[in-house]
Amino acid sequence: MSSAKPKLAIIGGTGALGSGLAQCFAKAGFPVVIGSRTAEKGEEFARGIITSAGSPRPMGASNEAAATAGDIVFIAVPWATQPQIIEAIKPHVEGKLVVDTTVPLVPPKVARVQLPSEDSAAVATQKRLGAGARVVAGFHNVAAHKLKSGAAIDCDVLIFGDDPKERETVIGLAKAIGLRALHAGPLANSTAAEALTSVLIGINRSYKVDGAGIRITGIAEA
Amino acid sequence: MSSAKPKLAIIGGTGALGSGLAQCFAKAGFPVVIGSRTAEKGEEFARGIITSAGSPRPMGASNEAAATAGDIVFIAVPWATQPQIIEAIKPHVEGKLVVDTTVPLVPPKVARVQLPSEDSAAVATQKRLGAGARVVAGFHNVAAHKLKSGAAIDCDVLIFGDDPKERETVIGLAKAIGLRALHAGPLANSTAAEALTSVLIGINRSYKVDGAGIRITGIAEA
Repeated sequence: MSSAKPKLAIIGGTGALGSGLAQCFAKAGFPVVIGSRTAEKGEEFARGIITSAGSPRPMGASNEAAATAGDIVFIAVPWATQPQIIEAIKPHVEGKLVVDTTVPLVPPKVARVQLPSEDSAAVATQKRLGAGARVVAGFHNVAAHKLKSGAAIDCDVLIFGDDPKERETVIGLAKAIGLRALHAGPLANSTAAEALTSVLIGINRSYKVDGAGIRITGIAEA
Repeated sequence: MSSAKPKLAIIGGTGALGSGLAQCFAKAGFPVVIGSRTAEKGEEFARGIITSAGSPRPMGASNEAAATAGDIVFIAVPWATQPQIIEAIKPHVEGKLVVDTTVPLVPPKVARVQLPSEDSAAVATQKRLGAGARVVAGFHNVAAHKLKSGAAIDCDVLIFGDDPKERETVIGLAKAIGLRALHAGPLANSTAAEALTSVLIGINRSYKVDGAGIRITGIAEA
């Protein structure tokens, strides 16, 4: 069994969720490349990441260079900028596992479910990247600020993808940063978690909390 | 404070979820009318319901007569039959609170999210009934067999509707049968819970359980 960890590129790694994921994966000992609009901004964020002793230092890069460098490529960009960023990284993710975390929020009504014409941002991502990229979706419902602070996260991660083996790979990554992650069906099912994010934003407002999440009940610890 | 309980009509009250709801509400002391294709079938089911001492006996009726009799009308019919049943009850629910529990499952792939063109069955129901009916949606994710057996239910009920006061009424009904129920935003957000039902069906299969549910975390007991 190889102990070599895959290099993880985080496209939009300076955003709320992206920087939280970068922080968690770096701390867990993964080599991380933080992608941003400019290499400079990516590098600046990379310097701010706390790693564990002996872990590789995260690097910063342009989104394109990060996509080229990563073995597995996370997409953590706002829905509005998704089309052009996908276009930019498309040549660099051919044959790679792409983990889409995009939630199709449409400001200002982010607490209202407003699905894209494809019904799911993940399905839209797969269409835009073409059949060469293997898209798995997840991490939609985790509060970004909790990832970043290292607080205990009382939220399951639902993982969607058409290939169970690739879902399993991403479940392994989520577990490596202390999250419970579950097989949640084909990529098209990502709609459920994407829509749920708007519901959770609304619940945060209605119940005056800042990190509502979800747990799947009725199953043994997975 | 009036202790008079509203009369609840359950359209499709002989189905899996409908009969479970009928059983729970009858046991909690609500007057219940079980609607079915024929009055005979509704009456037959009504006779099988267990009530508490002093509670009114449930009645059975045709779906149309049930809708006429109910103060609040639950819709618990399969997605495929929803259009014609809605058409049939439409004249009888004008001005009433309608609680839609419909999940847009499309057999045989019921573990795959397949949304209607309106993105949500509840929004489709509201469109079909017209502005006269006040539609609130909920009870999508509760395992029907658990409602029926009276087992403890480890699942929150997300309640969707454009009017917070009407959501509150339905939250009160859910609480009356022992469920935790939450404000989950406008009717359009029902997509999240409807889609989640397919995800839960898939999780039941993947993890070999029979009643996966969801809990919202990070909020105080509501």
